[in-house]
Formats: sequence, C-alpha cells, structure tokens
Amino acid sequence: MGREPRAITEPVPSAEDAAQPPHPSTMRALRKTRPEAGAELLDVPVPTPGPGEVLIRVEAASICGTDLHIFNWDPWAAGRLKDLPMTFGHEVAGFVQATGSEVHHLRPGAFVAAEGHVFCGFCRQCRMGRAHTCENLRILGVDFDGGFADYVVLPERNAWEVDRRIPLEVASIHDPFGNAVHTAFVAGGAAEIPTSTVVVLGCGPIGLFAIGIVRASGARQVIAVEPNEFRRNLAKQMGADQVVDPTQEDPVEAVRSATEGHGAEVVLEMSGVATVIDQGTRMLAGGGRMALLGLPPETVSLDLTDQVIFKEARLYGVTGRELFRTWQQMTTLLATGMVDPTPVITHRFPLARFEEAFEAAGSGRAGKVILLPPAS
Amino acid sequence: MGREPRAITEPVPSAEDAAQPPHPSTMRALRKTRPEAGAELLDVPVPTPGPGEVLIRVEAASICGTDLHIFNWDPWAAGRLKDLPMTFGHEVAGFVQATGSEVHHLRPGAFVAAEGHVFCGFCRQCRMGRAHTCENLRILGVDFDGGFADYVVLPERNAWEVDRRIPLEVASIHDPFGNAVHTAFVAGGAAEIPTSTVVVLGCGPIGLFAIGIVRASGARQVIAVEPNEFRRNLAKQMGADQVVDPTQEDPVEAVRSATEGHGAEVVLEMSGVATVIDQGTRMLAGGGRMALLGLPPETVSLDLTDQVIFKEARLYGVTGRELFRTWQQMTTLLATGMVDPTPVITHRFPLARFEEAFEAAGSGRAGKVILLPPAS
Amino acid sequence: MGREPRAITEPVPSAEDAAQPPHPSTMRALRKTRPEAGAELLDVPVPTPGPGEVLIRVEAASICGTDLHIFNWDPWAAGRLKDLPMTFGHEVAGFVQATGSEVHHLRPGAFVAAEGHVFCGFCRQCRMGRAHTCENLRILGVDFDGGFADYVVLPERNAWEVDRRIPLEVASIHDPFGNAVHTAFVAGGAAEIPTSTVVVLGCGPIGLFAIGIVRASGARQVIAVEPNEFRRNLAKQMGADQVVDPTQEDPVEAVRSATEGHGAEVVLEMSGVATVIDQGTRMLAGGGRMALLGLPPETVSLDLTDQVIFKEARLYGVTGRELFRTWQQMTTLLATGMVDPTPVITHRFPLARFEEAFEAAGSGRAGKVILLPPAS
Amino acid sequence: MGREPRAITEPVPSAEDAAQPPHPSTMRALRKTRPEAGAELLDVPVPTPGPGEVLIRVEAASICGTDLHIFNWDPWAAGRLKDLPMTFGHEVAGFVQATGSEVHHLRPGAFVAAEGHVFCGFCRQCRMGRAHTCENLRILGVDFDGGFADYVVLPERNAWEVDRRIPLEVASIHDPFGNAVHTAFVAGGAAEIPTSTVVVLGCGPIGLFAIGIVRASGARQVIAVEPNEFRRNLAKQMGADQVVDPTQEDPVEAVRSATEGHGAEVVLEMSGVATVIDQGTRMLAGGGRMALLGLPPETVSLDLTDQVIFKEARLYGVTGRELFRTWQQMTTLLATGMVDPTPVITHRFPLARFEEAFEAAGSGRAGKVILLPPAS
Repeated sequence: MGREPRAITEPVPSAEDAAQPPHPSTMRALRKTRPEAGAELLDVPVPTPGPGEVLIRVEAASICGTDLHIFNWDPWAAGRLKDLPMTFGHEVAGFVQATGSEVHHLRPGAFVAAEGHVFCGFCRQCRMGRAHTCENLRILGVDFDGGFADYVVLPERNAWEVDRRIPLEVASIHDPFGNAVHTAFVAGGAAEIPTSTVVVLGCGPIGLFAIGIVRASGARQVIAVEPNEFRRNLAKQMGADQVVDPTQEDPVEAVRSATEGHGAEVVLEMSGVATVIDQGTRMLAGGGRMALLGLPPETVSLDLTDQVIFKEARLYGVTGRELFRTWQQMTTLLATGMVDPTPVITHRFPLARFEEAFEAAGSGRAGKVILLPPAS
Repeated sequence: MGREPRAITEPVPSAEDAAQPPHPSTMRALRKTRPEAGAELLDVPVPTPGPGEVLIRVEAASICGTDLHIFNWDPWAAGRLKDLPMTFGHEVAGFVQATGSEVHHLRPGAFVAAEGHVFCGFCRQCRMGRAHTCENLRILGVDFDGGFADYVVLPERNAWEVDRRIPLEVASIHDPFGNAVHTAFVAGGAAEIPTSTVVVLGCGPIGLFAIGIVRASGARQVIAVEPNEFRRNLAKQMGADQVVDPTQEDPVEAVRSATEGHGAEVVLEMSGVATVIDQGTRMLAGGGRMALLGLPPETVSLDLTDQVIFKEARLYGVTGRELFRTWQQMTTLLATGMVDPTPVITHRFPLARFEEAFEAAGSGRAGKVILLPPAS
Repeated sequence: MGREPRAITEPVPSAEDAAQPPHPSTMRALRKTRPEAGAELLDVPVPTPGPGEVLIRVEAASICGTDLHIFNWDPWAAGRLKDLPMTFGHEVAGFVQATGSEVHHLRPGAFVAAEGHVFCGFCRQCRMGRAHTCENLRILGVDFDGGFADYVVLPERNAWEVDRRIPLEVASIHDPFGNAVHTAFVAGGAAEIPTSTVVVLGCGPIGLFAIGIVRASGARQVIAVEPNEFRRNLAKQMGADQVVDPTQEDPVEAVRSATEGHGAEVVLEMSGVATVIDQGTRMLAGGGRMALLGLPPETVSLDLTDQVIFKEARLYGVTGRELFRTWQQMTTLLATGMVDPTPVITHRFPLARFEEAFEAAGSGRAGKVILLPPAS
Repeated sequence: MGREPRAITEPVPSAEDAAQPPHPSTMRALRKTRPEAGAELLDVPVPTPGPGEVLIRVEAASICGTDLHIFNWDPWAAGRLKDLPMTFGHEVAGFVQATGSEVHHLRPGAFVAAEGHVFCGFCRQCRMGRAHTCENLRILGVDFDGGFADYVVLPERNAWEVDRRIPLEVASIHDPFGNAVHTAFVAGGAAEIPTSTVVVLGCGPIGLFAIGIVRASGARQVIAVEPNEFRRNLAKQMGADQVVDPTQEDPVEAVRSATEGHGAEVVLEMSGVATVIDQGTRMLAGGGRMALLGLPPETVSLDLTDQVIFKEARLYGVTGRELFRTWQQMTTLLATGMVDPTPVITHRFPLARFEEAFEAAGSGRAGKVILLPPAS
C-alpha cells in the first residue's frame, strides 16, 4: 500500500522490467456497504485468483456514469445491485500480479486492461460471435467485486494485454473508448465513414471519444451537439468541425445547413434523451444510419413514416463493444496515435480522495475522472 | 375497344406473334374528376408518347391500397393529388403499342410492366444508386395520368420488359411484389434469410407475397400475424408455417415460443400500426433485424433501450423497390416458379365494373383485385 | 467394449435417459504407429480429461479425405504428422462420459459432436473473431490423439451440444457439413444465394452437402460438375437441377447455356484442381463470387484480366468453419430437416473392419463412410 | 480558337458568370488518322449535340495510359480501335457550350467533367446497378470521338456537374481519381479502411491518388511499393508512411516487418504485373482483401492454397468506377480538400505541343500530364 505511483502519461516499460514483488495480504477497496448514497474505502483481503483467473494490480481506474449511479444509489442502482457489500468500478488498467491455475497466456508483469463483460462462451449469443450480448453476462463491479481497489481478479480472457505505447491512464479508458469505436464502426459499416458527414449527439466522454475516432477515420465533417459549454469545448479539442448548442440553435437545421440540405449520412446517438433521438432521425440523409448507444429511460416517440421509412434510414442498437474485435481496433487507434483521447481526461485523484472524484465526475465540468490507487 | 381479352393465366406469346394493329384515337380511362369519393369511366383521347416515352396497351391493372385512398378520397388523397381530373392506377402490365422518338430498346409488341416511380437520374439520391428515393420523384397515377385505362404513356426506362413465362395478371402485380422482395432482402441482407425465423406482420397483398418470397429463400420458419381470417387463410396458402391471430393470442409470446425463447432473426413489418411495430421490436432476437414498410399515420412509441439497444437490433426503413435490381430478382422468382403469387389474386373484373372491383378491394375479403381493361 | 451399438438413424434420447455407466480402463484405438501406409487397432488406456476437458464416448466417426491421406501415408501426411504413434480421426459424435475440472456447461450424458480445430482464444485471429484461422491451431487426430477410438478427450468448448433431433451418424458429419455451410454462406454473403444460380465444382462429400444447402437456401438453380458417375448420381439425389460430366461436356458452356449467357452468380469450388478453378472463373457472371475451398497442390494460373477484373468478380478463400456461427446454422439446417444429408452417407462399418472402410472411402464409389466403434 | 486560357488552379466561377459566347464552326482535334504511331492535330467541324447530348468546351484534358497505347499504336490499340480516323482522349473537363433536345438538367455554362463510359441503361448489368460494367459499353475516345479537342459531345448523363471549389485541371482527372476511389472503397468495404494497414502496389497516377485517398480515410499506415524513384517521391508527397523500392528490398518482407508479422489487411494492386500480384497475395493478413485494378497482359500464377484459402483472403476484381456513387464520393474528397491530388499533376502543355506531352507521359518521370486546349 506504500507503493510509489507510476508516471501515467509515459509509455509503459516492457514486461521484462516489470517483475512483480510479492503483494500484501490486505488492500484498500472502495465498497458499497449499504443501500444508500456514498461508499466506504475499506481494508479487505487481497483476493486469490481461481482457475483461469488473474490477479491484477490496479494502477488506474476511471469513473463511468454507471459508477456514479451506484455511488448516488439512484433507482437504477437500487434495482440492479443484488448483494452488498460490493467493490465497484470496472474501467481498470494495471499489471498482472499473480495467476491462477489454467492460465496459459498471461504472465505476471503483463500490462492489461479490463474487459468488464464476463461472458459464458456457450449460450446462443456467444456461439454466434456476439459474446458482448451473452445471455449469462456478468459485469465487473456490478455483479462481482470491481476495480476501485488496489487489486482485482478477472478471468484471463477478460484481461486484454495492452500495447506498451499506450500510457497507463489511457489504458484505463478502453471500456468507454471501445463503446465509441463500436458505435462509430457499426454505423459506418454498411456504407463508409470516409466521406460521410457524422453527427455526434451528446458529448459525454463516449461522445467525445467518438468525435476523435470518426475524425481519424475519414469523416468529411464532424458535427457535435451538446448543451454543456464545458463539453462543447472538449468537443472542439477532439476535432469537431462544428459544435452546436441546442439551447441556442435548432440542431436539425444546423445539420441540414452544413450538408446543403441533404442531412447527415451517420448520426451517433450518445445522449439517451428521447427528444434528441427524435431529432437524430430528422437530421438523417436519405439512406442514412443512426447508431443508438445512449439509453433512454422511457419510451421514445418517433415519426417513422417520414424520418425512417421514406428515407430508408437505418437505426442500429449498440451496446458494449465487440469481444475482442473492438479491442484490436482500439489498440490500433490508441497505440499509433491516430486518436489522442487525453483531452477528455480532465481530472485525476488518488483513490483516497474518491469523494472529490465523484463530485467532479458529477459536476458537468468534467470529462473522464481517473482514480489512481497507489498514490495514497 | 372491341378487342378480345387475352387469356391471362397462360404464358405470353413471344414478341414476334404480337404485332400491333393500329390503335383507336380514343380510349376509356377511369378518372378522378372531382374532389370527392368515386370515379368516372370516360372516353378520352389516346395519349401520344413523347421523346423517350412509350405508349402501352394495358391488359391488366391491379388495385393498390393507394388507389383505394384515391377512390375514397380520404384526407391523404385530398392532400396529395394536385390536379384533377386525373386517371389513376399504377400497377399495370401490357404491350408496347407505339414508341416516341429517342426510344432505342423497346419495340412495339414488347411485353412490359410499369415501374411507377419516375426518377430524374440527376439528383443526389439517383446518383448514389437510390433512384427509388429520387428527390424529384413523380408517381404514375398520382402525379400524372395512370393506368386504369386502355392505354398509358410511360418513359421507356420505366417499362420493364417482362419474361414471357410470367402470365399477364401476374405481370400486373410486379409493383407490390417488388415491395415485398425489397423488404425481405433488405432485412436479410446483413445476415441471411436462409436459416432465419422470419415473422411477417400484416397479411395484405405485400405481406402475403413476402411470405412466399422468404419461404422460397430458405427461411427456417415463417410466422404470419394477421387479425383477418380471410387473410390468415391466404397466408397459409402462401406457405406460412404458423399463422397467429393477434386478437386471440399474444404474437410476441407466439414467436418466442416458436423460437425456444430466442425471438426471430427477421421481422417484416407490413401493417403500419403503431402497436404492431412496438410488438415487432419485442419479438426480435438479439442481433435481429426489422424492416419497416407499413406507414404508421402517427408517431410510434418504442422501448428502444430494452428492445433495440441492449439487443443490438436493427430497424430498416424500406420504401418502393430498387431500380432495377429488385425487378431482376422478381423476374427470377416469378419466371422460374420459385414463388407462385396467384393465390393472392382473388378477384378479377373488367374495367367497366370498377365499382364492384373497388368494393371488393376494400371489403377485407380480398387479396389482389385486378382490372382487365379489354373485356368491356 | 462389449457395448451394444445404438440405432443411429433415430433421434437421440434426451440426456435424462443417457446416464453413463462407468467406463473401462482400456479401449480400442486406430493408431498410426509407423511412417508407412496402414494403421493398427490397438488396446490403449482410456485417456483422462484435464481441466476444461471432457471425455467423449465415441458412437460414430466418419472418414475424411485427411484420414485417407494419413492412412495411405502420402507425402502430405509424412510432412504433417510429427509424433507417432498417434490415434487419428476427427469427425466424431458421441456422449460425454466424464468431465475434468473447470467444466461448467456440459454434463455426462450430453450428446456432442467434435469441432476438431482447437484454438488459443488469444492470438490476433482469435481476437478478431476468426478463431478458425487461429495462429496456434491444433487439429484433433492430426496434432493430438483423435477419435477413431472408443473414447476421445476434447476441450469442453470444442464439444458442440447436438440437437437431439439429429441422428447419431448425421452428428458425426458436422465437420464437413460445416465446411459446406461456411463455403456456401461466404459466397452468398455480399449478395444473396436466394435467386442466384449456384455452381458446385466437385462432388465429394462437401460438394454434395453444399448442393443440399444452397438448394434449401433459395438458389434459383444448382448446377453440379463432377466427372465420377457415382457422385453425379448422389448430386442429383441431393437436389442438383443439372449435373454436368466435364469429360463429356464443357462445363463453362453448360453454365452459360443454363443462364442465358450471363454466367453464374455463385461458384463453390470443392475440387482443388487447377484447371477446374480456372474454369470456375470463366463461368462467373459479371459481379459473381467464387468461394475456394478445395486445396490445389500446385500454383494455379488464372486469366485475371478478363475473368476477374473486367467482370468485377470476387474470389473468397474459405477454410474450416466459423466457430461457432456455422455450427448454429448447421443445427438449424439439420435439426429442422431443411437439408437431408443422409444420401451422402453410403457406407457404415464397425471400427474393427477399418480396412474395408478405408478401401471403400478411397474407391471413388463412396460418399461418406462411417465407423461405428461399439459394434465389435 | 483565340480564347484566353483560364487560370486552372483557381476555383471556378459560378455558372452565372460563365455565359457562353457562340462557338466557331471548326475546331482543333488530335486525331489518329492512320494505323501507326503518332497523331495529327487537325481542323475539323465542331460537332452538333443530338437528343440527350451536350456539347462541351474542353478546358483541360489529361493523358491516360490508354491514350499512350493509342498514340504509340501498340498491339492492344491496333486490336481495339475499329474506325480511323478518330479523335482520342477521355479525361476531360470544361463547360457546357450547347445542348441538344431532351436535355433537361444541364444548361450552357455548367462546369462538367466527362464520365467516359457510355452505358445503355437496359442490359442486365445496368439494371443490377452495375452500369460501369454495361454489356453494351461504349468508351469516349476509343469507340467514338474523344476530348483531345476544343469541343466534345457527350450524353448529358455522362457529364458530371463539378463542384465549383474544384479547380479546372483537377476536374480533368476525375476519371483516374475515380478508379482509385472505387478500388480503395471496394477493398475496404467488408471490413474498414480505418485502422487497416493498406499497401499500394504500383505508383502510377491511380496508385498515387489511392495513397491520398486511403490516407484521408483513416488507414493506420500506407505502404507504397514502386521501383521508379520519381514515383516513389510522389508517393511520399501523397502521404505514404513507407515507400518500398522492390529492386532493393523484398516488399513482402517489408510489409510483414511493418505489421508485426501479420501482413496487411488491404492491398490495392495497380501494377498489372503478374509477379507483383503474386507478391500481393503473400503480404495479405489472415482475412485480408486485395483489390485488383491493374491489368496483367498474361495469365497469373498464384499460390491459392497458402496465400488465399488458408488465410481466407479475398480478391476483388475492380474496373472503372461506380456510376455515379464514386463521383459523389470524389466530389466530397476533392471539394472539401480531404485529398489534394495536385502533387500528381506534374506537367501541363497546350494542345498544340501534344508531342512533348506524350513524350513526358511516357518518360517515367511524370505523374499526370494535362493538355490545355485553349492555350494555342
């Protein structure tokens, strides 16, 4: 627990340099102990990896919207989390500390990031190559102990070996970056992102990453729609050609005007707001495609006849990221410098200052907030 | 006008046998003369084809739902039809009677069916290979004089030369049959219809044709949902494995039960009813695809989060048919006998008995109703 | 070893009925003991499943062309098999007899078929969803002990649980049937098999299965090309519309003549003969697709300019089958009766009569030859 | 003929500014008069556009490899050109001077570039949306009088209206630029160019354009292979990350080494050299795709088993460009500045100095050579 923090913006040294000293028997873990807002940083035993599992020493863990729901114990969290107490957090990067039996590929010292969707490999969805929608999905930090801790246990196959050119804190945002890659490449699959006008609706971290991704993938122009000024500024930094404040300007008109009236070929919906989804259909070009990642909490009313059917538009539901095709694509985008996600990482806190971290994450003036376990 | 009717269930003789006698100077035409319900069968001059146009001697013309709207002069028709009087009808088959200048491919005697979407060829949609969503679309029998008449004029490129193995009355239903082919093949594009469970929602003529088409295309099983008993019986004749009466049975449960709980890979929505569209999303399997052809008159509320996003389902708007890829596919399906559409053709009337024909078409106890112009 | 053989053309009883008696300590295994033609049926210990592995009681095992190479010890086998002695055979169906540790899905009594490609799950190809081209592939009966034996050990995830509607002997041919499904669906992916003319070049068992598969998947017509009369007759039984003897008739001309000169949209190449591959390109339509599964032993000369480039044809290399999307598709095709593969199964022998079985398999007058281990 | 040349690197003024003065009755035309090397610049009557045709005042015309074949009268040209004398040249940009009857979209003064493939619109290929492989294709400057002249006649639908942001000389290279776009986007269709390593084999003008296009479309890295030093330098200017001289270095090894041994996901073959095509297959990654545009004059020997089948590689024949989807994509790439093709335009000559122009074009030290008709 007295470990020195690693510099986290530098490339990570190779495995040979990273021999692992023995780990202590206890660790700190940020745990949800009671069905109410807040969390406690407790000392708990370091878990032992079972067959096919690895123990990861966490170096950076970023806060997801889901973690905020859990921290604040909103109705979704109250309905979803079954067994308290539980350690939460699922956006994790670190080093393999120890391996259980039947681990054949990763060795101690390996630099890894967590794919938090633990899949069975045997259900119909898994067998069809859609493991990210596994019928028996278990989620890190939601269904079992997560990564806001000094150590975390994961199945070996859920620990993605990270390219050493990727800095530690960037490694911890693979999960939302992968959402963005999967969303962008789904919607650009049939036709191509190259030469298309792409609109990103909602500039939370995933939307912001998506801007950088479609920018690097040959979009003709990228238009971001976001009411929060702080985030609009981040959108510009990530490469948006045009940033629309929907409280000041009709985003449908803005997109039409930027496309000679034709509309956008690709819309990436990241807001989960019903009226915004409706607007998304209205800004689609004939033959356009909208990928839906944001989760609207209520039903959504759409003008299917004029905005979808007569236009022959396509709406694609998107969740998670492909296991592990999206990770391979992320490696390329992040390790070669095609996309620089660092402007989105706006705050860093040691794990002990988790309350400040969650406050920042919920403030509307943050991109990605990262917890750095060692710097206690 | 004294012509003998052709036998219409027989293969059509070759062009050599079909030399064209001179046509009269006047003809009968079913015209909408006043903005009210009904229509008049009038004597009018036979039109003259201009450059790039052909004059077609109509042998069979089938009644579309659109024609029923026009006949009944419902609000849609009142809002859509600009200039009366006008001859209506757009599902037409017959023989080329005469050609204008600049016609280089069709000769008198050619056996043709009408593609009623007249496209410009120069707008962005046309240039992108999407002429069926042309920005300057003009529709036969809606924007200019149609085919419930002895003769009709069309651009040469809108007159599809029909395979002589296809009988005359079948030739007249290319338009709705093409809607069905386009809908089925759009939804089966990404993955394949072969091995998929396909649900057809709504068994009007287009839904009925779709049943035959996916049946011939290797669907694992075809489930048809339709409240009208007459149509459910036609659905069975067209090859549905299971027919669901939604007034008696929950169609979502019926589909789940027929698929071991997984849901259907492909749903073809032909009803245009908002609640049915919602049900369609609920019966989709993970990764499933729903093609939307029916036109809901109002907005539609959908549970996007659970029924589209978490499932990674896809919704495809579909309109018209591809020009002319769908026609080539239709030729294969109809000329080789892969699909027999004749059970759907339930009524035939001479043009003079048009009132009975429209009554039958609107009765709920009809499939396709065909007008046979010559038999006066 | 004194077990009664099961009736193998009947549906398989459910798992509840299949409680497993203890197995003996030794078993028979057909082993390649020396680098020369032939094989020996020996008594060896029944292997013990390790972590993540299952022990399968073999009920039916079919002979593949690869097994014939091994039996005859041709140059390919001599260069490929490293460590003798080894039990060979990889097309296997049976029941789970026992499970190792870390087996969480299959229980004793489960009815399974072997996917013989053991993949690592961690290499780039596996991570991209292409486990069947894993960079660390190990093949059952080639790289480790196979299934011409009373029992065989496999990783749990390589034991596909078979639908109980599929008879035992059909279960043993999943491997080559899967090659055929994968080949057919690859070539039909971009456009569709429905409405296409499909040519199958070479009617060994995989080609014969492919005929049934494309027949069930909505092909307009299926043309089979095969010099061997016995196989041409099987091609007809599997549903080929036209069967061409290339020693009597030019297959390129035959295809052109059956397609009004346009050529075939889809060609499935199963022969591995250089001149036949060249012919395959010549019979392709503009925009046509040829899937290559047969393995030519030498380089192949092609007229790329006229037969591929100007036609915009596409050539798709195909190997193995998708893990496990193809298996899901097979389950549909076989369990619902869409394809009946039994005409291809021409011979059945007890394991003890393996010499007759290999003679039949190599005779040119056999389809699939199946070994039935218990009937000793 | 005494017209002032336009500045050709500036944006083109709008149609309103470009009112057309009457044209003279005769013009200069570069004609092939005899079946031997060379050509003559002759005075001939200005042609008159027929129905559906436009007369274009040529402002820039670039020299294609085909024109070099014609100029040098090599065996291909001798076998292909039927009727002499004929004006050649097909890469043309200019302004509509006059219109025939039945021209409804273009007006005099319109800024246009020529699509030289005149298609029938009625054959099976055209009807399937593949007009660029029309069965009745007629080529500008090969089958009828071309554009190395002051004026040229084209069907209206073959005159693409050019975005005014595109300079005149760039407008004249739409044809080869479109080959490059079509080749790049075909090979990137199934998977995506974004994140892929792309190899361009052969850096003539089309290969050079392709480098810029995949660079702008999100390729991870672009590797160009070309023996000619002058062209290798242009490849760098167009954005190649790595340029390989195959006379000094094994290009297969170079690609493997740049891809951690995996090979390239996408190879664009522009050389038409048999040994280079074979190398192309050897540098493909598992699941990789090679687009073939270069036309090998003889058959090509390939190791299909190891380089295509076991890798599940795909070979795509490519010719021409899609009518007119590719043109729309070009407009985006060129008008928005995504790709700057001007480094490839290395020489400009007035039409009268055509002999120097052809010498430059054939010298191996040129990219694109452009003839500027007015500057006489």
